Amino acid sequence: MPEDTIASRLRLSGLCFFLQILTIILFAAFVRYSPESSFGPCSQQLNCSWKNQDSGFQHPRLRDVHLQVLLGFGLLVAFLGRYGPGSVAISILVVAFAVQWAVLIQGFLYSFLNGKIYVGAQSMVSADFCTAAVLISTGAVLGRVNPVQMLLLTLLGVTLFTLNEYILLSLMGVSDSGGSLTVHTFGAYFGLMVSRILHQTHMDKRKEQRDTGHQPDVFAVVGTVYLWIFWPSFTSATTVHNNAEPWAMLNTYFSLAASTLATFVLSPVLYEESTLRMVQIQDATLAGAAVMGMAGEMLVTPFGALTAGFLAGLIPPLGFRFLTPALHSRLKTQDSCGIHNVHGLPGILGALLGTLLTALATADAYGGRGEELELVFPLVAQGSRTAIDQALYQLCALPVTLLLATLGGCLTGTVLKMKGLRSPPDTRNLENTVLREVAEEGCDRRASRKEPSTSTLV
Amino acid sequence: MPEDTIASRLRLSGLCFFLQILTIILFAAFVRYSPESSFGPCSQQLNCSWKNQDSGFQHPRLRDVHLQVLLGFGLLVAFLGRYGPGSVAISILVVAFAVQWAVLIQGFLYSFLNGKIYVGAQSMVSADFCTAAVLISTGAVLGRVNPVQMLLLTLLGVTLFTLNEYILLSLMGVSDSGGSLTVHTFGAYFGLMVSRILHQTHMDKRKEQRDTGHQPDVFAVVGTVYLWIFWPSFTSATTVHNNAEPWAMLNTYFSLAASTLATFVLSPVLYEESTLRMVQIQDATLAGAAVMGMAGEMLVTPFGALTAGFLAGLIPPLGFRFLTPALHSRLKTQDSCGIHNVHGLPGILGALLGTLLTALATADAYGGRGEELELVFPLVAQGSRTAIDQALYQLCALPVTLLLATLGGCLTGTVLKMKGLRSPPDTRNLENTVLREVAEEGCDRRASRKEPSTSTLV
Amino acid sequence: MPEDTIASRLRLSGLCFFLQILTIILFAAFVRYSPESSFGPCSQQLNCSWKNQDSGFQHPRLRDVHLQVLLGFGLLVAFLGRYGPGSVAISILVVAFAVQWAVLIQGFLYSFLNGKIYVGAQSMVSADFCTAAVLISTGAVLGRVNPVQMLLLTLLGVTLFTLNEYILLSLMGVSDSGGSLTVHTFGAYFGLMVSRILHQTHMDKRKEQRDTGHQPDVFAVVGTVYLWIFWPSFTSATTVHNNAEPWAMLNTYFSLAASTLATFVLSPVLYEESTLRMVQIQDATLAGAAVMGMAGEMLVTPFGALTAGFLAGLIPPLGFRFLTPALHSRLKTQDSCGIHNVHGLPGILGALLGTLLTALATADAYGGRGEELELVFPLVAQGSRTAIDQALYQLCALPVTLLLATLGGCLTGTVLKMKGLRSPPDTRNLENTVLREVAEEGCDRRASRKEPSTSTLV
Repeated sequence: MPEDTIASRLRLSGLCFFLQILTIILFAAFVRYSPESSFGPCSQQLNCSWKNQDSGFQHPRLRDVHLQVLLGFGLLVAFLGRYGPGSVAISILVVAFAVQWAVLIQGFLYSFLNGKIYVGAQSMVSADFCTAAVLISTGAVLGRVNPVQMLLLTLLGVTLFTLNEYILLSLMGVSDSGGSLTVHTFGAYFGLMVSRILHQTHMDKRKEQRDTGHQPDVFAVVGTVYLWIFWPSFTSATTVHNNAEPWAMLNTYFSLAASTLATFVLSPVLYEESTLRMVQIQDATLAGAAVMGMAGEMLVTPFGALTAGFLAGLIPPLGFRFLTPALHSRLKTQDSCGIHNVHGLPGILGALLGTLLTALATADAYGGRGEELELVFPLVAQGSRTAIDQALYQLCALPVTLLLATLGGCLTGTVLKMKGLRSPPDTRNLENTVLREVAEEGCDRRASRKEPSTSTLV
Repeated sequence: MPEDTIASRLRLSGLCFFLQILTIILFAAFVRYSPESSFGPCSQQLNCSWKNQDSGFQHPRLRDVHLQVLLGFGLLVAFLGRYGPGSVAISILVVAFAVQWAVLIQGFLYSFLNGKIYVGAQSMVSADFCTAAVLISTGAVLGRVNPVQMLLLTLLGVTLFTLNEYILLSLMGVSDSGGSLTVHTFGAYFGLMVSRILHQTHMDKRKEQRDTGHQPDVFAVVGTVYLWIFWPSFTSATTVHNNAEPWAMLNTYFSLAASTLATFVLSPVLYEESTLRMVQIQDATLAGAAVMGMAGEMLVTPFGALTAGFLAGLIPPLGFRFLTPALHSRLKTQDSCGIHNVHGLPGILGALLGTLLTALATADAYGGRGEELELVFPLVAQGSRTAIDQALYQLCALPVTLLLATLGGCLTGTVLKMKGLRSPPDTRNLENTVLREVAEEGCDRRASRKEPSTSTLV
Repeated sequence: MPEDTIASRLRLSGLCFFLQILTIILFAAFVRYSPESSFGPCSQQLNCSWKNQDSGFQHPRLRDVHLQVLLGFGLLVAFLGRYGPGSVAISILVVAFAVQWAVLIQGFLYSFLNGKIYVGAQSMVSADFCTAAVLISTGAVLGRVNPVQMLLLTLLGVTLFTLNEYILLSLMGVSDSGGSLTVHTFGAYFGLMVSRILHQTHMDKRKEQRDTGHQPDVFAVVGTVYLWIFWPSFTSATTVHNNAEPWAMLNTYFSLAASTLATFVLSPVLYEESTLRMVQIQDATLAGAAVMGMAGEMLVTPFGALTAGFLAGLIPPLGFRFLTPALHSRLKTQDSCGIHNVHGLPGILGALLGTLLTALATADAYGGRGEELELVFPLVAQGSRTAIDQALYQLCALPVTLLLATLGGCLTGTVLKMKGLRSPPDTRNLENTVLREVAEEGCDRRASRKEPSTSTLV
């Protein structure tokens, strides 16, 4: 066995050991269970407005549903569809570390009290949101970084995500309960920037001829079904305004349905192969869900959700056909899982839609129910901001997020490129590193779609 | 690429576009969120008797559990087991459109008020039930119709299902909370009738030599596990009489267990191949669940559920061995997924069992708890009907459902046979249409079971 | 077809028929639904202390979550990962029968009142715990016993499990809500003892060259994700002390995260193949969950959960590398699924940790909240035992469980070895029995890991 391989395996082992021991020490020093867990760190965070409500109702959601949602989403949806079991090992490593790290970092920012962080069920939900964003980011570089780099990406990504979320939600008072901006847009552009920095010409060539064969479709099926099942709860998880109003959930559900039909409208026209692959439906579902992140709780009519979902569903087919090749050839940015089309653009669309809806938010639009408005936009209802002011804040949150994501991505990419971390450039050795399973099953999206035009376009 | 293929792809694209825009317009004109969602359109429908109860308890069920149930059920269970990922793309298209259309049609029939339809979480549950019935129907013709025909089948199926449900539940006052009649029986016979009308000799021959290989078993495993996990909640979803009485769920659970053992009793005797395929267990599970649709909330003893489940579990092995070949050769009715054995006959058995239990329903049988009886049979408890009267109504619901299903199936089949919709008769071209992925993986049930007697029987 | 095969098929069919009819008769004679289901047989059992609480809150957990948990866990997690769809057919048979039988046996021991057993949702949860233990036991002999033997193993295993549970929880007053001892330790050592008794030299040789190929990894992915999603609820299912305290769930969650990282620490060092297989992560997840069985509700600090999880995660890699080969060669005990490393040792570690925590349990450690202590250790809080006394009882429960498990395993193994039940010794015939699908897909763990040292060690 070559020396390189042994060294890289020991490096992974050592890094995992170091990070876990570090986390245990920090937990021992700072983290305690909240005496009343349901009343924990959520107060200032994520616009949660139910802190005064009866906690009994919330727990079944947080405890059972939500933990499910994130993991089901994160693991199955984002990556299974494209990379098979090999990449899941890495994804689970990312999840296992990101959750612990996010509890720490978010604790320091949101609920650091008398030198201790008090965690509860709500902390895990926040940590799950953070993990979702990092998983989206890893989608841009999957198959081209080794596990050690992936762990560092997680370490930095969690920290920067929390910083961005803190600025948006706590400082600017922006409403983004489902994470159109904080999760989808941040995750996508952070990942793309890292991918841009890591760009290496000679390695990428080789990957493009790969194909995942049939298995990914099996995963795409499972992933899509999971999405349909769990995402409506995901979007509405932090908007438990009132148990009688499942708007966010219904909006998401309608959006998923419309975006799926949108894919059946465009795909037969854009792709010549005449079969609709499950992975395309999965993309549409993801896009339809991402667009509802911010607007989900604001939309007050079902046809609005249908329209937004339909528009979002048009993005991935167009993006994969025209945008991804251009990104790759012009901007030298590879996007292994197509997160730009599936999370980035729909997230931005969702943010713009949310801004529009905020500007229109009056007690009238909410059917004269002031308490509804109060829950979605507390500052507007209290009179300390007008609806237009709030809309401006929502709009400003978009460039702030993009800026933080790209700057953070540059920084992270530069760190990952450090000499000790890079995989050996010799591709034959690469095959034998810890990455092997990933590399073998990884593939470029376009390759797996067998577009005849790939070779000429790129 | 042949002209035919391009035309068929454009036809699908156009139809999807037309239907989605039509739905958006109709939603914009008519559909609004119910001010109190939990109090929505359920009132007259599905025998729901909890409208006066505290809504807080219902939502975790409706919101999280139930949406999961339907989709998990619809997608994975009914079709994954037999047709692999290709057919799932079509199934998801059916779900995406059926849910929207069902909200509209059911809204017009049940909750049309002042020119508006008010929807809430309960509307989605009703729409999900409707979607389940349509998915069962598509199981009879899967692999032999193109996506355009599938969409039209959905359009008409949803409408006819709602009509039948309205007659049974609202006009006749029948109790059928889990849908033994409305979902299983209607779905199965509607689908079979459509299949009979579409019968084409030369195409069917070719299909019979196909085999799905190993993959379907993977899906059958996942599907069966999903069934065990989610169906007990499905059956009891509309029977939230009282949070202290999870009878419907326990009955379903016992029924699943007994029907599984029944398959292990019959299969080793009937089939010579000496291995028990997962798909057979899946059939038993489906049958055991279908039989509890109507009777689930009426049974008051666990051994009754065990007995009913055991009997239901005997149906699929016998049906696939003796009935399906006879149906095909004598009645020229193909049944791609065997829905007659798995949904049709167990549904009828469930309806007969429900009738019997209704006739025996007295306050005594319910342990002297009048309020229980009130919840299952409000009209009996109020004294406006005797138990025998109610039983007669339940019994009459069976021929009404069968009549509507077959008439509706004739009508739908005739529409699908219209010239412009049919796939080109040339089988070589068929391979290249949008159907390809389905056709490749589709197979006749009997073929996949490698019964040696198939060729001589048919 | 050889006579043997027909006979073995008929034997399976007959046994299933006999057991199901027997169960139906016993149910008819004894089992009734509890008038208030939530108040059912739980009272004396499983330390359940919420019998006086409002039942409304419990039901969403018990009904939806918990039934899911067990089945999802039992089927997917324990066996899918290693044996593919074939073994799942047998697993589902085991579940279907074990649930019915456990309701009967546990009913006789715990809730036999006036000649009737009253069952409710809680009975199903208890039955599910019992089924989980039996599934773990079957993991030791999977692929080497026929379905008839499996059914008898279930029959005896359920009875002995219930006896052990009754002694521990009801007679000794031990706290073991998540089943570190009753489920994991008992299940593992019972199964190992059965495997030891059934040891047959010539059969085992042949199996070791088998490999499951790629499919198991697909199942390992699904299984691991299910574990992450559902296990935290599983561990905390019987500890619904108070809706405001999701400690058990958070502890389990942290433990899973840490044990996953532990695998990434050890595996690259111990295994030379340089890829991390999903099945190893699944093992770590199982171990991390098993260790939290008893201690989950007792731990009051997050870093304790991280530390325990980290230690538990180190066990499976070390065990598979050094212990399993030694067990096989020295003690002639085969362990098809490696349950000793994944359930047995982590279960013991969990029991020891629970003992330690019990000794430290004072009202102070529980943050001065006496009611917390009351819920975890009612006898200590009432003053009838000191914390040290309780710790001694917890410690004694370990040898009691080990003794019962090994004695029970001896007895069961001897029964299974009876002449009529054994598969014909001729291996060629074995291939044609009902077992075929299992045998074909079954494989020895070490074989599937392609350890180069296997052939020399054994």
